[in-house]
Amino acid sequence: MTRTISAQTLLTRELLERRRPGYSLEAPFYLSDTVLQADMEHIFGKHWLFVAVEPQIPEPGDYVAIEFGSKSILIVRDDDMGVRAFHNVCRHRGSRLCESHQGQLGNIVCPYHQWTYDLTGKLIHAKHMGADFDPSEMGLKTVHVRTLSGLIFICLADDPPEDFEQMAAEMTPYLAPHRLQDCKVAAQVDIIEDCNWKLTMENNRECYHCVANHPELTISLYEFGFGYQPSAENAAEQQRFIDITNAACERWESMGLPSAEIERLDDRITGYRTQRLPIDRAGQSQTMNTEVASKKLLADFTDPALGGLSFWTQPNSWHHFMSDHIVSFSVLPISATKTLVRTTWCVHKDAVEGVDYTVENLTAVWNATNAQDRRLVEESQIGIATGAYQPGPYSPYTEGLVEKFCNWYVNRLNAHSR
Amino acid sequence: MTRTISAQTLLTRELLERRRPGYSLEAPFYLSDTVLQADMEHIFGKHWLFVAVEPQIPEPGDYVAIEFGSKSILIVRDDDMGVRAFHNVCRHRGSRLCESHQGQLGNIVCPYHQWTYDLTGKLIHAKHMGADFDPSEMGLKTVHVRTLSGLIFICLADDPPEDFEQMAAEMTPYLAPHRLQDCKVAAQVDIIEDCNWKLTMENNRECYHCVANHPELTISLYEFGFGYQPSAENAAEQQRFIDITNAACERWESMGLPSAEIERLDDRITGYRTQRLPIDRAGQSQTMNTEVASKKLLADFTDPALGGLSFWTQPNSWHHFMSDHIVSFSVLPISATKTLVRTTWCVHKDAVEGVDYTVENLTAVWNATNAQDRRLVEESQIGIATGAYQPGPYSPYTEGLVEKFCNWYVNRLNAHSR
Amino acid sequence: MTRTISAQTLLTRELLERRRPGYSLEAPFYLSDTVLQADMEHIFGKHWLFVAVEPQIPEPGDYVAIEFGSKSILIVRDDDMGVRAFHNVCRHRGSRLCESHQGQLGNIVCPYHQWTYDLTGKLIHAKHMGADFDPSEMGLKTVHVRTLSGLIFICLADDPPEDFEQMAAEMTPYLAPHRLQDCKVAAQVDIIEDCNWKLTMENNRECYHCVANHPELTISLYEFGFGYQPSAENAAEQQRFIDITNAACERWESMGLPSAEIERLDDRITGYRTQRLPIDRAGQSQTMNTEVASKKLLADFTDPALGGLSFWTQPNSWHHFMSDHIVSFSVLPISATKTLVRTTWCVHKDAVEGVDYTVENLTAVWNATNAQDRRLVEESQIGIATGAYQPGPYSPYTEGLVEKFCNWYVNRLNAHSR
Repeated sequence: MTRTISAQTLLTRELLERRRPGYSLEAPFYLSDTVLQADMEHIFGKHWLFVAVEPQIPEPGDYVAIEFGSKSILIVRDDDMGVRAFHNVCRHRGSRLCESHQGQLGNIVCPYHQWTYDLTGKLIHAKHMGADFDPSEMGLKTVHVRTLSGLIFICLADDPPEDFEQMAAEMTPYLAPHRLQDCKVAAQVDIIEDCNWKLTMENNRECYHCVANHPELTISLYEFGFGYQPSAENAAEQQRFIDITNAACERWESMGLPSAEIERLDDRITGYRTQRLPIDRAGQSQTMNTEVASKKLLADFTDPALGGLSFWTQPNSWHHFMSDHIVSFSVLPISATKTLVRTTWCVHKDAVEGVDYTVENLTAVWNATNAQDRRLVEESQIGIATGAYQPGPYSPYTEGLVEKFCNWYVNRLNAHSR
Repeated sequence: MTRTISAQTLLTRELLERRRPGYSLEAPFYLSDTVLQADMEHIFGKHWLFVAVEPQIPEPGDYVAIEFGSKSILIVRDDDMGVRAFHNVCRHRGSRLCESHQGQLGNIVCPYHQWTYDLTGKLIHAKHMGADFDPSEMGLKTVHVRTLSGLIFICLADDPPEDFEQMAAEMTPYLAPHRLQDCKVAAQVDIIEDCNWKLTMENNRECYHCVANHPELTISLYEFGFGYQPSAENAAEQQRFIDITNAACERWESMGLPSAEIERLDDRITGYRTQRLPIDRAGQSQTMNTEVASKKLLADFTDPALGGLSFWTQPNSWHHFMSDHIVSFSVLPISATKTLVRTTWCVHKDAVEGVDYTVENLTAVWNATNAQDRRLVEESQIGIATGAYQPGPYSPYTEGLVEKFCNWYVNRLNAHSR
Repeated sequence: MTRTISAQTLLTRELLERRRPGYSLEAPFYLSDTVLQADMEHIFGKHWLFVAVEPQIPEPGDYVAIEFGSKSILIVRDDDMGVRAFHNVCRHRGSRLCESHQGQLGNIVCPYHQWTYDLTGKLIHAKHMGADFDPSEMGLKTVHVRTLSGLIFICLADDPPEDFEQMAAEMTPYLAPHRLQDCKVAAQVDIIEDCNWKLTMENNRECYHCVANHPELTISLYEFGFGYQPSAENAAEQQRFIDITNAACERWESMGLPSAEIERLDDRITGYRTQRLPIDRAGQSQTMNTEVASKKLLADFTDPALGGLSFWTQPNSWHHFMSDHIVSFSVLPISATKTLVRTTWCVHKDAVEGVDYTVENLTAVWNATNAQDRRLVEESQIGIATGAYQPGPYSPYTEGLVEKFCNWYVNRLNAHSR
């Protein structure tokens, strides 16, 4: 055991020391089981992870089981409407407690020998264990959990990063007006990408690849919103985008909707970024025709043109909050070369399918975009695995946020792996 | 090579030393490739393994190929009706000799270059090998084999444990009256469980899980036969079970059928246990209606109510001998997380399918039970792999034989891996 | 990194030192990931590999992508009709450039961010990279490539073995008359064998297994062409074969077709062997009826009975050049236990399918033979993996070329891995 950890530390340290700023990471970061072990231990084991939205568990006893790497975590709505998280493992002989990815339960009963836990994780029943057995020592192992305006984050560490609270304080004014807690899940799609999770994240952190690869997304997305090399040819168009954005932000701020960029991606433990950006054409939503996907707007909104409030978190999520729906992405490693991308679309809980919205229209843009991104990151994984790959230069104009992701990742690994 | 063995020894020794009696084993025992290597080398490589029943190879030239881990062993009926075992590997360039899992052959001919061995393993033909070639040095590699009242055991070690003979002496009076040698195989089913082989064995060694999981098996099985925490509520029922058992045993002993428990699970190299227990309701057989599955009783039996004579062996088998049929289970590791469970049902060789028995009725209880157990052990494997598992306490009333399995396993590994 | 290489070197060195001439190799050579790594680094990384034929890329912009291990190499016909080879990996963020195994392109455009390379590998376009970016440093990584009478060889080393030129000088008179460059690909079939690549190669280097396993191939193949233990019974038949061969060779030499054996399998870096052997029965081609498969003969041939000119190369190919068609085999490791065998049949480029030849008739013999060989090598892999395998003696009469393959392999590994 000691031996393994030390080999991991050695390899990781060597790679971290060799890292060249301004360039993509070396191949073992995307290929090595040892690095994945370090990622699972230090990145996914010690930071706040976005794993679900509150509308997935509206009622007491509702649960979802989040599985990544070899882990399995139960997220449970308790009887007092609180959100709790437990390791999905019986304290007796280790059986997984809930096999389904989601469901409803009164107590948590192990299928093997019927050890029974209540929704607070307390062991309340275990047969045949004799007089010396103390059930109070055998409660479920808890996992730290926080909600932020309806987004559920967990942290597997004993002492989770405290700066979550500062992020929550800064982000709540942005997110709360959309009232995710009053939504329902309209659709959820899992895809498994044959690549390292960092390629999925890096791909999310730039739009250099959008023009040529995402015809559906770029209907609603302004190309200038994610970086551009200035030139004589594009100067006028770029200025026009700045003017539109400034005017829109002024309007949104006056409605009580904070919109200015906050960028804290690589200078804190719980890294994040937010910005509300205008939507092109009809200006309403990330749909094929840029109009709202759901006629029943969120919260008490009456104006459908609220742009897209994006919220990006390290290490594993991004979200787009619009006037009519919210789409959330959670990225979870399965192995060094397999990654789960879970996309969740929420609409107002009173929106009626077939009347106010259709799932097909709601999900069209991101289902298409996800499929395109999947191919891009899988081709990257294949190329990087060839042995001929060497780190290449990032564009100073369009890949700055990719570098910030790498900065954050390298800093966090450095902080923990020595 | 030396390096690998030493890493294996180190890990195994560390784990063995940390073992806490009364608690389940630590996770690496179920997950680690290194431990599986130790299991293959020391447990499956140096102990007697149950692998087949004689009715699988009734005639000269009949063979079965037993495959586990990466091993392949031929069990052959020779021309003198003896049972022989060989490594299923040509001495020339290493080809597997028999591709099928069972069949009939005159000589053993390698498919590659037709090197030909007789049923004693002697090389009797090899073309083009020149004058200096000595075929007598190129016979098949033999494997030790013993039969016990129709059950076939092999041992891969050069010097197999000698206490097999004592077990045979003690067990023959129990097993011989059922005359397995005069049976035929009525059905054989292989299932592959996605778990470590020890979870399969531990599951077999307790019935704490039976009530809630095995509705078919518990029709014929008395719950009290496998341990129970005494209480005011169940005292009368428990006493009734003891009375029934004592009366039945007295009756069986008077018929010349030894029935008393022998328990030698963890105090010898070739560990085993036996007991003849009454069957509930009609009292005849492990079937859905507890009546015999085959009207043609075994041996010269006339009384169908002979209970169930169980025979459990370390590390890899259990058997139930009844008046009408015998069901045998062989457990063989495929990898650290994959295990083969082979179930074989034997009836009298003169029983006629469709007249005396149907395969569906004969196999109904154990096919259902195996499927249920498979889910239980696979859920255990998943839970144990999460990293949140830690060894939990065994019930002093219902999991004593699980602990004896662990005792035996730990003792045997300790004896060989240092 | 240093650690891994050293473990590889240690294991490989130990195995190489233990090698016993006259006997097959030890099991780890066929099983171990560490040895496969050494094979990929030293054998496939530093020697000339046969990977394609020129008729696969007749026109400028035509390419094939050769994938083995985790590598991906583009073989491209450039605008000056030269053959070039590049690593199929973008210099920006490492994406694979061409996903298809073959195709046609003007420039090489990365699908991710549209970095664009011309057919000489030069980076000619990259957006958003700023003023400091120097595209001349970002050309594709080149791979050494040589053609030999239409056969394309690559070498991944910086300094490829120079003795390719001597092989080319000796082989050109044999191969050139068949004018492979003026052929077209009539069929190409990939099979993946579940075995180590060395078992595939060793199987190719002997015909001891042919009589019992290859009924289709032995219609055209003289059994005596690949070694035989002399005996009183076969002396006359063997003499007859020698006479036929001598007469045929005399005739072919008089036509300007060199036919005598050249055997340089294990005494040089770029090992090879050639021989033109008579074909049995009608004497024309490796077909089911031994007549030509294509009525349109190659080059300017008018005589269909030109025998079979075989060309075997270390480490990974063999070829049969006949009057009417050429069949080429390329063997590439996928992993320690998976191997790609690619078979390519070429006919005259003016031959018309359905008129001059049918694909079914052209490919019948080798499709059948490949399927038979696949089973043989997979059974060898299984047997060798059992642990009961130990190196067996080679026949001094029929397995001499297998031993020369092993000699070459061991010598080359010795030269590089210390």
